[in-house]
Amino acid sequence: MEIAVLVFDRITALDAIGPYEVLSRLPGARVHWVGLQPGPVRTDSGLATFVVEPTLAELDRADVLVVPGGFGTRALIEDPAVLDWVRAVHETTTWTTSVCTGSLVLAAAGLLAGVDATTHWAARELLAKLGANPVAERVVERGKIMTAAGVSSGIDMALTLAARIAGDEVAQAIQLGIEYDPQPPFDTGSPEKAPPEIVELVRSLT
Amino acid sequence: MEIAVLVFDRITALDAIGPYEVLSRLPGARVHWVGLQPGPVRTDSGLATFVVEPTLAELDRADVLVVPGGFGTRALIEDPAVLDWVRAVHETTTWTTSVCTGSLVLAAAGLLAGVDATTHWAARELLAKLGANPVAERVVERGKIMTAAGVSSGIDMALTLAARIAGDEVAQAIQLGIEYDPQPPFDTGSPEKAPPEIVELVRSLT
Repeated sequence: MEIAVLVFDRITALDAIGPYEVLSRLPGARVHWVGLQPGPVRTDSGLATFVVEPTLAELDRADVLVVPGGFGTRALIEDPAVLDWVRAVHETTTWTTSVCTGSLVLAAAGLLAGVDATTHWAARELLAKLGANPVAERVVERGKIMTAAGVSSGIDMALTLAARIAGDEVAQAIQLGIEYDPQPPFDTGSPEKAPPEIVELVRSLT
Repeated sequence: MEIAVLVFDRITALDAIGPYEVLSRLPGARVHWVGLQPGPVRTDSGLATFVVEPTLAELDRADVLVVPGGFGTRALIEDPAVLDWVRAVHETTTWTTSVCTGSLVLAAAGLLAGVDATTHWAARELLAKLGANPVAERVVERGKIMTAAGVSSGIDMALTLAARIAGDEVAQAIQLGIEYDPQPPFDTGSPEKAPPEIVELVRSLT
């Protein structure tokens, strides 16, 4: 099973590594870190590196496409080479997925016209402007497209996807393998739950 | 604030990227991916790469030390150069932390003698053999040492640590920023919750 993860300058690392950590444990999984040019790309913080291999031109199909988010998606949604590639690979996939603002790229490529999808909570309006129908859920599955909300939600999305691909028992074993029994120290992980002043603080930074 | 993350062949990517995604958002954070030799190291799956920069010899202090886990820790706990470095850097830290089997490295370095600590659930016996007192909790804080359970627990650990370092409001804003409102599709994330046959399956693979 060929898994293509799009990587780019100003990607959010956890958007990519959450799904990677789950999906790479599926039987027969191979992961391709696909980017515009060979070599390293820096994350949004500037503090971590992904190594591109192969380039967009070198990979034209995948069983699973994962489009992570990050500030760098602002450039991707205006890059015809990226959008053409996403459209072309989508034609070959069993599943096309996104995490966080990765869904903006799927929308800009025309894959989400009038389709329910999710994104980082602060990007819902932009997702609507790009033609999708934003849904305030953590994982949204419509046909073969599965979109996840902000950053950490890629783990939940990928476990859901693992169950679709390999069955509940395999997904449950992966969940146990990565000891995913979350116990956040606070209950402020969504704008509906966080105090309004913290929501405004985070919104001003994104 | 200087954050040193130890990276090595056969590291588990999410062990490192979970804490990175949280801690890199702290004001003034700088992240160093410290390893034995310059250049790339491969993750446990062989399917992802970390880039070492700087080497152990080039970094001798940190405010926060993060030791991730992975099968590669089996080699680290027998490597005097690594254990000497961990001991030396620990002398300089405000916080010394681990995720998953990273606590085996702290224990082998002599930092956990008789100290409560946690690790991946399948490694508790090994942690005890190395002199620590294994506790079946997700995040264990004793003095300046904070250890986390398997893989994904590094996110919970890092949010707890972010609150200690920068206060509850900053940690809550980071949690909202990464939309950490977990909704796992199954409730099988710990050996106490998963069906026994799945626990045995995963144990046989670790």
